[in-house]
Amino acid sequence: MMKSILGALVLWSVAAAPAFAGAVEDMLETDRAFAAMAQEEGVPAAFAAYAAEDVRMLPNGAQPYMGRELMIADFADWPENASMTWTPVEGMASKKGDFGFTWGRYVYTGVNAEGEEIVAHGKYVSIWRKEKNGDWKFVVDVGNSNPAPEETP
Amino acid sequence: MMKSILGALVLWSVAAAPAFAGAVEDMLETDRAFAAMAQEEGVPAAFAAYAAEDVRMLPNGAQPYMGRELMIADFADWPENASMTWTPVEGMASKKGDFGFTWGRYVYTGVNAEGEEIVAHGKYVSIWRKEKNGDWKFVVDVGNSNPAPEETP
Repeated sequence: MMKSILGALVLWSVAAAPAFAGAVEDMLETDRAFAAMAQEEGVPAAFAAYAAEDVRMLPNGAQPYMGRELMIADFADWPENASMTWTPVEGMASKKGDFGFTWGRYVYTGVNAEGEEIVAHGKYVSIWRKEKNGDWKFVVDVGNSNPAPEETP
Repeated sequence: MMKSILGALVLWSVAAAPAFAGAVEDMLETDRAFAAMAQEEGVPAAFAAYAAEDVRMLPNGAQPYMGRELMIADFADWPENASMTWTPVEGMASKKGDFGFTWGRYVYTGVNAEGEEIVAHGKYVSIWRKEKNGDWKFVVDVGNSNPAPEETP
């Protein structure tokens, strides 16, 4: 089972050749720019820049909520010594190329109450909508945990 | 903060009036039928019926994988005494109404190694694609945990 899963992961880039490559490429590029901004200007600033006004936030371990304003308030608690990096794997788009998703893997690094470093691995889905001005904004942010990919037998 | 989140949840049905109500209604109805089938015929059978061939499965705590066949193999481990119920909250669709998502809340009930009942609450996102035959199939399944909604202060 695990072997066939790894096989599927390896084949992904081939098997998942997108029908609407333009929009998918645009969303992947947007997601990469979003991740780069998180590295350069911090996670809260990057989320504020790429979230749609009506974003649905579905944080792991907490209640869902809606709206960019609430999201910005929520990120006020973001620890200064925490970082999150992510890399999109692939995505899919609607026929007209106005809507779709990317998913990828993240690594969260933070410090616990005892001052010890914590590293958490996981995956995420961002659902993107092309706004009237042509910008892609994410309307859903959801993710969950998994073991470090290299630990998978 | 928590109060404003609850306010946002209460306002959801008003604020999130969908621009493309037809497709959103269709996806919500499909998600409800999917949930009903899980109750009547079991969770594995329902997932097999509603998953797209190229579904991306992003299970909480485990590695992501792709494909309905692998998903069916994965669900072979589903415990007989476990149940999962879910209720969609709302969703959003592409302009042409061929692609979109629903999200909602789930309750998982199972039995641990000591024979004690476990109840786990969470939320999920299903991303739906309208297939050539007009059926909606989910292309992404992802979810994560949260406290029971009634426990939120």
